[in-house]
Amino acid sequence: MADDVAVLGDLVLTHDTIVEGVHYLPTDPPESVGWKLGAVNLSDLAAKGSVPAGALLSLTLRGDDQWEERFLSGLEQILEHFGLPLLGGDTVALPAGAPRVLGLTVLGKAGGPVPSRSGGRPGDKLWLAGPVGDSAAGLAQLTADPKATGLLVDTYRRPIPLLTIGALLAPHASAMMDVSDGLLLDARRLATASGCGLRVDLGTLPLSPAFRAARGEDRAARLFAATGGDDYALLAALPPDVDPLTILKGTEVNIVVVGELTGGGAFVLADDLGPVPLPERLGYEHDLP
Amino acid sequence: MADDVAVLGDLVLTHDTIVEGVHYLPTDPPESVGWKLGAVNLSDLAAKGSVPAGALLSLTLRGDDQWEERFLSGLEQILEHFGLPLLGGDTVALPAGAPRVLGLTVLGKAGGPVPSRSGGRPGDKLWLAGPVGDSAAGLAQLTADPKATGLLVDTYRRPIPLLTIGALLAPHASAMMDVSDGLLLDARRLATASGCGLRVDLGTLPLSPAFRAARGEDRAARLFAATGGDDYALLAALPPDVDPLTILKGTEVNIVVVGELTGGGAFVLADDLGPVPLPERLGYEHDLP
Repeated sequence: MADDVAVLGDLVLTHDTIVEGVHYLPTDPPESVGWKLGAVNLSDLAAKGSVPAGALLSLTLRGDDQWEERFLSGLEQILEHFGLPLLGGDTVALPAGAPRVLGLTVLGKAGGPVPSRSGGRPGDKLWLAGPVGDSAAGLAQLTADPKATGLLVDTYRRPIPLLTIGALLAPHASAMMDVSDGLLLDARRLATASGCGLRVDLGTLPLSPAFRAARGEDRAARLFAATGGDDYALLAALPPDVDPLTILKGTEVNIVVVGELTGGGAFVLADDLGPVPLPERLGYEHDLP
Repeated sequence: MADDVAVLGDLVLTHDTIVEGVHYLPTDPPESVGWKLGAVNLSDLAAKGSVPAGALLSLTLRGDDQWEERFLSGLEQILEHFGLPLLGGDTVALPAGAPRVLGLTVLGKAGGPVPSRSGGRPGDKLWLAGPVGDSAAGLAQLTADPKATGLLVDTYRRPIPLLTIGALLAPHASAMMDVSDGLLLDARRLATASGCGLRVDLGTLPLSPAFRAARGEDRAARLFAATGGDDYALLAALPPDVDPLTILKGTEVNIVVVGELTGGGAFVLADDLGPVPLPERLGYEHDLP
């Protein structure tokens, strides 16, 4: 799809589906799967500066009432937290042994002009709100040890969509999107949609203390954070005269410049040591298994 | 869910999901699966007298490009036929061998007050627009012989949602719903939601000539038609002074009285020979496998 959301009049519409074994681990607590299904959709609204208005759930049942109740409690918790009423949906049975496929449609009301991916211009600064890499680092810990716990695992399981930040930035953004598949991949998507080239400075990545403690902060760690995905951060292209630090004053989220849009089509990556060759994999491409 | 749709201001929202091996046969042509996914959702809008406004698709991919292209061509055909723009959605990979799960969210604009399931009153006549049983008879033919063809198979594969009929009836209906899980089951749902009892006369069922040719029209055939499901007919509770034959003049769909809502909670079934014991299975309950 060309953008994270569809716009219909003053409505912003998004639908995200998550698949067991693809987007979450079968061993993840059902509550966190419910929370994440809400979060991925709310993060799309955040990237458009929209106010949540209502949701429809597509729930597949596999006969495990306890799993489904726990999943619903996690979903309801995040919907309640962000004031999003669950209006309806559909419940269908799955054949025995089939992986769960869970979908949510979310409607929002636009707070004003909706920033697309394609409005960026050469010279716009690329601002990143929210750390990247924590969720991928948490997933790596869980893959190594399903009983792993800690801040990174918590971020993987219970991401926070940045709705307030998105609503504050949207009126000023040339282009905006949420970083869900890896910063490098998503930044390239924004640049490509905007007909621009791209420079990203790995040295400025906002890495959390927990991330630094687990994986360090060298070039390999920064490339891991920039390609890991599942971040729920926001990437905004802002004209050089816009100062988001003033706009976001009073909010708690860190926002930093991670690069800029350029003329021409090149994608230049660098860190404090100099140019960095583009990794083969820029993010999570949703390739077929 | 308590109703087929959710209502948000003047918006009518519905989401239906279909699962391979549950809602359609793995051997069904992909185009017909796409058509049906559109039809099940449009039929929900029809039951609320709503005008299609936009759709979001949740598409699972299993690496069979040809299947997915054919599926999309069938979906696009019905959406184009009914003037429903596909606005966006999500595409996700499935693990190898997993059954496909295909979801569509459809938004409509209400044409006026939206009839619910629960507005029926004792004395309302139950009108059924569209034949019942054809689709279930077609499915039975395909189950016996995957190469079966004919009118009943065509109806199973390519049902027609009754949007014009729904829009004409909605302003006059105390309650309305589409008959998708079997007439007896859905009629009981409407009566229960309305706090009424129910009398259904099997003798008046609108059976198509193709259905009569394939299965006859005795009590067993009529019970099959009234419980088979997958019908895309509309069931409307109309006050006795409303004459839908006048309202629908000029349209092609047959509409007949199949019963009425009553005081008290009883469900009375009859045909030309007298009372009929309620069958154990009133329709397709979406039980877990």
